[in-house]
Amino acid sequence: MFITFEGLDFSGKSTQIKLISEYLQKQNKNVKVFREPGGTFVSEKIREILLTKDEIHMSDAAELLLFSAARSQLVREVIIPALEENCYVISDRFHDSTIAYQGYGRGLDLDFVIKLQNFAINNTLPDVTFFIDIPQEERLKRKHSNELDRIERSNGDFYNKVRDGYLKLCKSEERYFKIDGTKTIEEIHKMVVKKIEELEKKRNDKNAEKS
Amino acid sequence: MFITFEGLDFSGKSTQIKLISEYLQKQNKNVKVFREPGGTFVSEKIREILLTKDEIHMSDAAELLLFSAARSQLVREVIIPALEENCYVISDRFHDSTIAYQGYGRGLDLDFVIKLQNFAINNTLPDVTFFIDIPQEERLKRKHSNELDRIERSNGDFYNKVRDGYLKLCKSEERYFKIDGTKTIEEIHKMVVKKIEELEKKRNDKNAEKS
Repeated sequence: MFITFEGLDFSGKSTQIKLISEYLQKQNKNVKVFREPGGTFVSEKIREILLTKDEIHMSDAAELLLFSAARSQLVREVIIPALEENCYVISDRFHDSTIAYQGYGRGLDLDFVIKLQNFAINNTLPDVTFFIDIPQEERLKRKHSNELDRIERSNGDFYNKVRDGYLKLCKSEERYFKIDGTKTIEEIHKMVVKKIEELEKKRNDKNAEKS
Repeated sequence: MFITFEGLDFSGKSTQIKLISEYLQKQNKNVKVFREPGGTFVSEKIREILLTKDEIHMSDAAELLLFSAARSQLVREVIIPALEENCYVISDRFHDSTIAYQGYGRGLDLDFVIKLQNFAINNTLPDVTFFIDIPQEERLKRKHSNELDRIERSNGDFYNKVRDGYLKLCKSEERYFKIDGTKTIEEIHKMVVKKIEELEKKRNDKNAEKS
């Protein structure tokens, strides 16, 4: 099962990923967790360029292509093999991040951004995508670090566009599961568990039907 | 004027670029020379990943996107501004390299590769592209270094496909000027000079017509 978490920075994705992966591991399930960009030698090198704390010149076009390059490598080198071994693969961000941030946020040609993501993920779509939604004010409240990376320093208008992008994806993509990110950590965790168990049940029923 | 040089490794591009840029500079022309991938902070970082001497895992997809990312940045950060200042911009490889190497050589979806290049170069097509053609045997004769990079280590069949790709571009792209790379350095240089002067004359005639 391939599970992705999406949302603005500081929405609580990492906390939820930690909780659900521990939960699945306790059930003796083989779980692999990745955070994008990264997860392979090449993708980590790309991450260093993308998320530098330095002020560098980077066009929106180069940013888009670098995120997509890192993802291409992650998918082919580790995600596809892990799914073939029947692992639970959990990714902190995936192709929807690029559609939301570079497509909707930066305003790059959306058709091209989507075509590029299809190429990057090589038909490896998530089974479920949890979108943890927080409004802009909540993001600002939680943003305390002085050490923001290149993308986290973008302005509020950018983040409004990114969130709108995610909300559009919620409506158009059946695999999306939207969660109110202002709920407590425990409440959100329970919703995630419930959704995954529903999906598993559906899958088991389907397999039973087949045999 | 935007001039690119294309061809297999060891075809003599760098030597010819050195000669023609010296020639233009002697005529008090403002010349900027780039070699791809590279030419900006971000693009040089990408070059380090692409042309490492180490054995690393890199999918053809990631390779394609990294070359395109480096080019996106080079075009937007330096080539477009230099052309706007009426410089002679000379590039050692440009988007045709990706069409020939990743499209024809690696066998990636050619339509997608071309769309991606259109996005990367942002309508910045060369005025003339010199393709210095050497057959595979000549390439092998000239290849003496033990310190080959990741791409130069590819096998002969790959290079045959790359060359075929270039030969197809020669036929379909009017801006192409094919040169027999087994001719002497001086002979090739004279052909390059002649072609550039023809183009300049044509451009001056056109400008005279307009005014």
